[in-house]
Amino acid sequence: MALFVQKYGGTSVGSIERIQQVADRIIHTIQQGHRVVVVVSAMAGETNRLTELALQITDTPSAREHDVLVTAGEQVSIALLSIALISRGYSAVSMLADQAGIKAAGHFGNARIESINTQVIEEHLQHNRIVIVAGFQGRDIEQNLISLGRGGTDTTAVAVAAAIEADECQIFTDVDGVYTTDPRLVKCAQKLSEVTFEEMFELASCGAKVLHRRSVELAGKYHVPLRVLSSFSPTNSDIQQSGTLITSSVTRHTELDQRVSKQKVAMENKKITGITASENEAMIVFDLPAVPQTEVFDLLSVLTEQDIELDMLSHEASFTHESTVAAIRFVIKTKDLPTALSLLQQYTEKNKLFSGQVMQVSDSVAKISVVGVGMRSHAGVITAVLKRLARQQIPVLLASATEIKVSVIIDKRYMELAVNALHEEFALNAEQSIKL
Amino acid sequence: MALFVQKYGGTSVGSIERIQQVADRIIHTIQQGHRVVVVVSAMAGETNRLTELALQITDTPSAREHDVLVTAGEQVSIALLSIALISRGYSAVSMLADQAGIKAAGHFGNARIESINTQVIEEHLQHNRIVIVAGFQGRDIEQNLISLGRGGTDTTAVAVAAAIEADECQIFTDVDGVYTTDPRLVKCAQKLSEVTFEEMFELASCGAKVLHRRSVELAGKYHVPLRVLSSFSPTNSDIQQSGTLITSSVTRHTELDQRVSKQKVAMENKKITGITASENEAMIVFDLPAVPQTEVFDLLSVLTEQDIELDMLSHEASFTHESTVAAIRFVIKTKDLPTALSLLQQYTEKNKLFSGQVMQVSDSVAKISVVGVGMRSHAGVITAVLKRLARQQIPVLLASATEIKVSVIIDKRYMELAVNALHEEFALNAEQSIKL
Repeated sequence: MALFVQKYGGTSVGSIERIQQVADRIIHTIQQGHRVVVVVSAMAGETNRLTELALQITDTPSAREHDVLVTAGEQVSIALLSIALISRGYSAVSMLADQAGIKAAGHFGNARIESINTQVIEEHLQHNRIVIVAGFQGRDIEQNLISLGRGGTDTTAVAVAAAIEADECQIFTDVDGVYTTDPRLVKCAQKLSEVTFEEMFELASCGAKVLHRRSVELAGKYHVPLRVLSSFSPTNSDIQQSGTLITSSVTRHTELDQRVSKQKVAMENKKITGITASENEAMIVFDLPAVPQTEVFDLLSVLTEQDIELDMLSHEASFTHESTVAAIRFVIKTKDLPTALSLLQQYTEKNKLFSGQVMQVSDSVAKISVVGVGMRSHAGVITAVLKRLARQQIPVLLASATEIKVSVIIDKRYMELAVNALHEEFALNAEQSIKL
Repeated sequence: MALFVQKYGGTSVGSIERIQQVADRIIHTIQQGHRVVVVVSAMAGETNRLTELALQITDTPSAREHDVLVTAGEQVSIALLSIALISRGYSAVSMLADQAGIKAAGHFGNARIESINTQVIEEHLQHNRIVIVAGFQGRDIEQNLISLGRGGTDTTAVAVAAAIEADECQIFTDVDGVYTTDPRLVKCAQKLSEVTFEEMFELASCGAKVLHRRSVELAGKYHVPLRVLSSFSPTNSDIQQSGTLITSSVTRHTELDQRVSKQKVAMENKKITGITASENEAMIVFDLPAVPQTEVFDLLSVLTEQDIELDMLSHEASFTHESTVAAIRFVIKTKDLPTALSLLQQYTEKNKLFSGQVMQVSDSVAKISVVGVGMRSHAGVITAVLKRLARQQIPVLLASATEIKVSVIIDKRYMELAVNALHEEFALNAEQSIKL
């Protein structure tokens, strides 16, 4: 009889009817003999509704007060879910951040959980109460309400699971698991029954929207088994056979394997777990004649100091008899592009370092990443990626590789073609798996 | 340079436009050199919207969780008001019950404030911040959120004003003050510029809806001068010349007096401050043959134990040679009538005490109350009331008098006639005051 943390997002509690279904699902888990702590988001649309009210007053609402405003959304949903459980005869108790002992620190709107004092949660569990915790919020050292930013409710769920040493943290969402790639791009994308934290972290970083990467990082750090599953499946389905389990060690198999068990040995050699594609990328290329390397990195630090993340940074230099000619390439999120361009311009104007520099910006690129822990023991993944893309006549603008990930930047218009080709190349298609 | 507590109700913060106006009004007060603590209700309609959500789940939502649910409404309005003030360049900070140190106790949905630890509020005031406190909510000894019930935000405002020793607690509402009677019933009802706490308590108890009687009681107990004024008047009007001031000692005068000062002496002798009328009353009459008095009160305690308030209780007994014949009359609120009748029936069936009893219920009655501290030094107010009603041919079904109040029960259809007649009788009409 396990201790589970279950997280329900905004869509899962988006209406009274959906809240009733969540209550049914929790009760089903309780009836199986488990104990449950639930972490809940605001009802779908509520956070936007509240933010809209603030924006009617000013374009730049006070960050502290904006957090007070939006966290009211979770207060409503924990109360409604508790009311639903209690009305069915179950003992439930809602807890706000301070009641659940959730201490956070950092910037308003983007805090990190510092600690959770689990004493009160554990007392409630000992009294067989279902504990319903408000996601997305904490209290700072001065008792200010402070929100955790995007994906904050997932983070709360993982942090609570780590703190109470739950057997599993179950993230109920509007998809039924993690797929080999985006099923909207590749028709025969397959659901994975297990992935590792490392793979999931790369998948989340590269645009798979199922989980926020902060929550994956936290789960990996504290070894909290994390399960992603659908809140739209029948409320009495067997949780531990559903969705995708994200864990430290994986017996590699897909849903299909469970049906075709004789294929299992072949599958266990699978190099690649999944492929992600992201369109929200912009590539910046600097051609820099005769500039010392330290000053190049000075320039880049102008961006990183403003929390603009540089991805796939590459730096090439060639030496002629007269000077060093260098090229710098990197990728940033398109949302950061206007700020980045204005910062770079200010810097170069002020420092007059780069006369003769040429800066090119491509904002119509896509980033394709091929992820898998199996890569470690299989050399040549990057070669296979580049070869296959060449065969499809897709020019690669930039490529990089880490231990478990190969990423390429290509023109956006080739994105779907590239993902489908690579999905086939690495035998992720359902039909192919059987044929292997 | 005074310290004010300003309370804004749901209508006053019912839209972003109204919140902006409240911000203007607060800033005007600050610009006059005052310091301000603001206490705010949920936006009009919000508490009902949230309660409706709970009622879609169950007719009897958990009281604890219902409090968690509805108090989210005040969290939204304090944040929005703070955002509005900060966006205009003023330093403001919102405070929830626990942040403002508001401890409450009692039943969920109907708690009483136990104490306020003003340390943090006072620190903010010392830093010249406008403090925006969530009304209607407290935290109990176990840190549960607990609401103060009807009129709760007024109560918060008065309690905060008492705790920080404010110079005045200003209740901004949708009327511009306390009137001699309901202006919808009597065309020439006059606004009072001052009334005493005792009078206001009686007026609030007898159906004047401007203030909840609990907040008046609290203000009287802690000698907090209380001003009722309109949040619809121009935002730059002079607060201390507006509305009605409720205070311990009154220099009796009306708005009219201020214009016609030579009439002042006459007015200071005014016996009566105001007249209230309430239709939500039901009268119960028991004719009880041969019952010992103790058992009669036993019967009544069945009602009071269920928190049903008995008003204007009268007990008459006449002795014949065989037995005591008694009549009991009292008034309850019509909302309590179904419960009261079922309790009385259960009791009498179970105890079989009152064979031969006759119980009459009149739920088409009105209660008219004439209130004024001046009554103390003017005998004969009750006689004047009864005489005038007789002259108008209005039968009085029950009458009672306290030191500063005379109440009568009459048939509902005479209500308007009675209030107008008594308003004239006690020289409260504007025209008459001048003629005095």
